[in-house]
Amino acid sequence: RFDRMGAGGPLFIDVTWHPAGDPGSDKETSSMIIANTAVNYCGLETILHMTCCNQTKDDITGHLQKAKRLGLKNIMALRGDPSGEEWEEEVDGFNHAVDLVKHIRNEFDDYFDICVAGYPKGHPEAESYEADLRHLKEKVFAGADFIITQLFFRSETFLKFMKDCQAIGITCPIIPGIFPIQGYHSLRQLVKLSKLEVPQEIKDVIEPIKDNDAAIRNYGVELAVSMCRELLDSGMVHGLHFYTLNREVATTEVLKRLGIWKEDPRRPLPWAVSAHPKRRVEDVRPIFWASRPKSYIYRTQEWDDFPNGRWGNSSSPAFGELKDYYLFYLKSKSPREELLKMWGEELTSEESVFEVFTCYITGEPNRNGYKVTCMPWNDDPLATETNLLKDQLEKVNRRGILTINSQPNINGKPSTDPIVGWGPSGGYVFQKAYLEFFTSSEIVTALLKVLKKYELRVNYHIVNVKGQNITNAPDLQPNAVTWGIFPGREIIQPTVVDPVSFLSWKDEAFALWIEQWAKLYEEESPSRMIIQYIHDNYYLVNLVDNDFPLENCLWQVVEDTFELLN
Amino acid sequence: RFDRMGAGGPLFIDVTWHPAGDPGSDKETSSMIIANTAVNYCGLETILHMTCCNQTKDDITGHLQKAKRLGLKNIMALRGDPSGEEWEEEVDGFNHAVDLVKHIRNEFDDYFDICVAGYPKGHPEAESYEADLRHLKEKVFAGADFIITQLFFRSETFLKFMKDCQAIGITCPIIPGIFPIQGYHSLRQLVKLSKLEVPQEIKDVIEPIKDNDAAIRNYGVELAVSMCRELLDSGMVHGLHFYTLNREVATTEVLKRLGIWKEDPRRPLPWAVSAHPKRRVEDVRPIFWASRPKSYIYRTQEWDDFPNGRWGNSSSPAFGELKDYYLFYLKSKSPREELLKMWGEELTSEESVFEVFTCYITGEPNRNGYKVTCMPWNDDPLATETNLLKDQLEKVNRRGILTINSQPNINGKPSTDPIVGWGPSGGYVFQKAYLEFFTSSEIVTALLKVLKKYELRVNYHIVNVKGQNITNAPDLQPNAVTWGIFPGREIIQPTVVDPVSFLSWKDEAFALWIEQWAKLYEEESPSRMIIQYIHDNYYLVNLVDNDFPLENCLWQVVEDTFELLN
Repeated sequence: RFDRMGAGGPLFIDVTWHPAGDPGSDKETSSMIIANTAVNYCGLETILHMTCCNQTKDDITGHLQKAKRLGLKNIMALRGDPSGEEWEEEVDGFNHAVDLVKHIRNEFDDYFDICVAGYPKGHPEAESYEADLRHLKEKVFAGADFIITQLFFRSETFLKFMKDCQAIGITCPIIPGIFPIQGYHSLRQLVKLSKLEVPQEIKDVIEPIKDNDAAIRNYGVELAVSMCRELLDSGMVHGLHFYTLNREVATTEVLKRLGIWKEDPRRPLPWAVSAHPKRRVEDVRPIFWASRPKSYIYRTQEWDDFPNGRWGNSSSPAFGELKDYYLFYLKSKSPREELLKMWGEELTSEESVFEVFTCYITGEPNRNGYKVTCMPWNDDPLATETNLLKDQLEKVNRRGILTINSQPNINGKPSTDPIVGWGPSGGYVFQKAYLEFFTSSEIVTALLKVLKKYELRVNYHIVNVKGQNITNAPDLQPNAVTWGIFPGREIIQPTVVDPVSFLSWKDEAFALWIEQWAKLYEEESPSRMIIQYIHDNYYLVNLVDNDFPLENCLWQVVEDTFELLN
Repeated sequence: RFDRMGAGGPLFIDVTWHPAGDPGSDKETSSMIIANTAVNYCGLETILHMTCCNQTKDDITGHLQKAKRLGLKNIMALRGDPSGEEWEEEVDGFNHAVDLVKHIRNEFDDYFDICVAGYPKGHPEAESYEADLRHLKEKVFAGADFIITQLFFRSETFLKFMKDCQAIGITCPIIPGIFPIQGYHSLRQLVKLSKLEVPQEIKDVIEPIKDNDAAIRNYGVELAVSMCRELLDSGMVHGLHFYTLNREVATTEVLKRLGIWKEDPRRPLPWAVSAHPKRRVEDVRPIFWASRPKSYIYRTQEWDDFPNGRWGNSSSPAFGELKDYYLFYLKSKSPREELLKMWGEELTSEESVFEVFTCYITGEPNRNGYKVTCMPWNDDPLATETNLLKDQLEKVNRRGILTINSQPNINGKPSTDPIVGWGPSGGYVFQKAYLEFFTSSEIVTALLKVLKKYELRVNYHIVNVKGQNITNAPDLQPNAVTWGIFPGREIIQPTVVDPVSFLSWKDEAFALWIEQWAKLYEEESPSRMIIQYIHDNYYLVNLVDNDFPLENCLWQVVEDTFELLN
């Protein structure tokens, strides 16, 4: 969902803080870890909400330290809703958002950007609208950088509020909170929680259609669009904040109708950039993790510096050790029974494994009629770019060259190319052809003979699970395989084939055979033994064709290998 | 001469130590500074000789510290010739080369590689040949890494010596010292100095032709070639050391006849790499100093780190301040009267300056019949590569676009290309078209209007002597204008257009008008005032065409500018 909603290019997203959900913990569903995922793995600038509820000052400091460690840079400082009817004094804690703002500034100086909440109708517990404005001013003067408002139902409400804020000296940005009505019940609940009143003209429309979800949603979208138009037309509003309630359809629809949903197929780099402040300079990664970026980010999270411009000739890139965690936490999205349908309830030979790879490449159903939409090394269907190589990939997989990563060569396509383009416009992108696969030792023996003919043109690394390693890489230097030339910039080379990190990758690549595939079957079962055999005896091979302006020679290398074998 | 002799790719050169010539001083002709020039400016691995003569232990330590500071890595440790007839005891100093070797190892650990001298006929002052061999062994065991021998006249002399060394346990490399006889008198002098005897068969040939220099040189070359052949054929010799006496012809000739003079037109980078250990990683430089590399090296000599892979977005590259030193020390090789003949005894208008630039580009004689072979910004005739642009350059210089630096665009030529190639073979080199020139403010005004049309394609920097600066470089980022893609390596981008260092370069570029050109003329003379006017009023402009795969558009930009002016 983050990826889908992130496609529209939001300035930031925010993640709420639920006192009941252990929000600062390491649970996969805690606010903290969800924000961490958004920033580090999805590359989304993220605001983590934080409330004063049920927490001591020390608890809060601990949460903030953790947030900082994870690379979160923005906090929405809230008092939070009372757990009962009324707010109960927090002993050793804070009772007002302003105290939390001061605390963050005291303890963390300027590290965090701080956002606070504004109430266009006044906070329901405030003595008056004016008193609430004064509270808001206090929060801003205590160090908040900007304001996001509570939802409202009429644009006039926001515009009046904004003028009133300016009148008493609040000059920071104020972003209106937009709530596209998505259903009768969610509206009722939200209204109850926020103690707002729904204007009569809206009630009049909604009540008669309250059981017709689609009609209410359509109306909600219409209403949000016209309110946003009024706000934007006022010239006073420079951004919109949407209360999505974790649902993407209504918000996406509103943005599209407003003409501000701009899905740009171009990426800043060929891989998704992390939003962690330490990683912002990062612009080089080994190609091996191309289909497992989360694993790469996880295994490098302890790095103090990230490669920038050059990968460098690192003799020990110190990847995080390979623990089951990588294999399980980052495990397939599909349940066991689905995987069995795709990868075979029963394997009878190595060839039945070849078939699984081939079906994944072709997109054709397997012999039991199921499409193979993921593999242990690829959680998603084939990338558009890989599709360019589909016919050749199919041919070689059928014969036991079990491909897990590849890219075509590219000799200067515009950076705006919809399939292979990336980076700023006006540039040119390039690639060297790359092919990575598992294969048997018989094929490797023949391949090595063939590679002699291609010695100056093709770089290779060939390794088995025990780490026996054969390569012709000069001085174990990395080979740049993707690069871009842009106006007014230095050259960017975002992916390299690095001989040293290949050895860290091979541990992961081999382990996936066992952890994700073999373990689907009973111990000692023939299916499991076949996968175990492949794991123990096959080699992992990568090939780079350095002559990127010529036709990719890697298919010929494979062809020559099979010819030699026959 | 270093550059010419360096073209043959020697493993190293060596620089002798003359006690009488203040060898450790900062004089331009001291051994220390000559070795410094060889290493830092010419990129030649260099052995600095050092003797014990007339020096205290502290003097020697001081020289070694200075050598280390300058980036010298190799010392030839010698006792040195006595200043009178016999060696006189050095008080507070050393009396044997072995003591100097020990001292270097004690004080500098393994920093220096140490070479010592071997005497194939025994040192003239030694008690015996055997005693001298024992002294040599002592020097090696004290820490010397290899041996270069005194000259000799017969290959048997060396081969016997080598066997004798091995017999007493000297296992380090021993390089024969070859002396191609170049003249009767130099031979006599050298023989006297080294107390060697010239074999009768050589005397018999030389005596009758002693007044015929050419005949003696030819004979010397013949003799050296046949001796070297015998040495190489023995299989015991892995290198040759030539006593050139600072003359290149005979040695070059010997090497060519032996077939081991291998002039490789390909360069590791497009500019000459320095041999200073700190600079060895350096692989990015701003393009501005392309014709003044010595000035660049001088102005960056205090840097602790040199750019490697990326130039980076340095807000202050801290170039050494521009002092007269740069302009005078690095001044033109031609004397004043020659410069006046080339650049005009008398200038009558700005147009007469345009003519000088035009003649430099075309190679045609000027109106007084003299060829313009250098300019204040270019000490050498036009580079072969710039020749590719000759016609266009001629046209624009005639009209007051006074070019001082340029390169054509290149879209992937083989790295072995004889004109534009560089780097390891099997690669491809690329360039963005670049043009740098001085021009009047009228032309700049029109140019700026024209550049609006090329906004996305052309990056520009335009600055006058006061530092008024106009640019469209995004965030003052450097623009890579030369790069290479090689098998099994990361991408190399050896030249960039960097907006920040351009401002350091412009001080130098403008100062050259005054220091090298205006000052040729009397103060207050019209000629001097014309150059002064240009210095005060012209702009320095650089243009990059980012669309390297298309035809260079910079000529069209200039053409459009002139059209607008008409």
